[in-house]
Amino acid sequence: MKVTNYKEILPVTMNNEMVKNVAGRVLIGREDGASNFCMRLFEMGPDGFTPKHAHDWEHEIFVHAGNGEVWMNNRWHSLSKGSAVFVPPNVEHQFRNSSDKMFTFICLIPSKAPEL
Amino acid sequence: MKVTNYKEILPVTMNNEMVKNVAGRVLIGREDGASNFCMRLFEMGPDGFTPKHAHDWEHEIFVHAGNGEVWMNNRWHSLSKGSAVFVPPNVEHQFRNSSDKMFTFICLIPSKAPEL
Repeated sequence: MKVTNYKEILPVTMNNEMVKNVAGRVLIGREDGASNFCMRLFEMGPDGFTPKHAHDWEHEIFVHAGNGEVWMNNRWHSLSKGSAVFVPPNVEHQFRNSSDKMFTFICLIPSKAPEL
Repeated sequence: MKVTNYKEILPVTMNNEMVKNVAGRVLIGREDGASNFCMRLFEMGPDGFTPKHAHDWEHEIFVHAGNGEVWMNNRWHSLSKGSAVFVPPNVEHQFRNSSDKMFTFICLIPSKAPEL
């Protein structure tokens, strides 16, 4: 069992050409005994984005705070607090912040994928 | 692919001796092509609770809003916005609201479990 708060977990920050202004945390993963799927949380600052890419595992995403957009099917879709996104395997996708506030979302992946 | 907001999905309400003041929604499930794990969202009103029970699948939970508690390992653990809980398979657990506001959390389960 595990009871935590994401603010108690030290983030891994990513800020390069591929991933800008992003801090990621594994909330529940293999180390906790979660053998089927992994919960991560990402905070994305102003102008932040993730790479436009595709891979053979899915994402299940829930927006906790802020406003952003996801690229799928050749267009941007608006996201806000309470949005949920299913990115199936092998579908090209990208996330970006669309405001000057923090864009915070959780993103779950199956256990075969890299946790962070 | 799917892009939605939980407020766009009609809830299933539960209000009986076992589950009190709870509204549940499947945000991402088998119908969307999610074959490994399922994302549900639960809103729990004042005095609301889920059953104290155990089953052979795990929960991965993230608290979106409000304040509540989870029973695990023979005691109540406080939960607030940003809390994450891993309930391993076969561990007895129960959730309850601990304030007079809505307690809102997402709860993920593997695909072998009933979605709602």
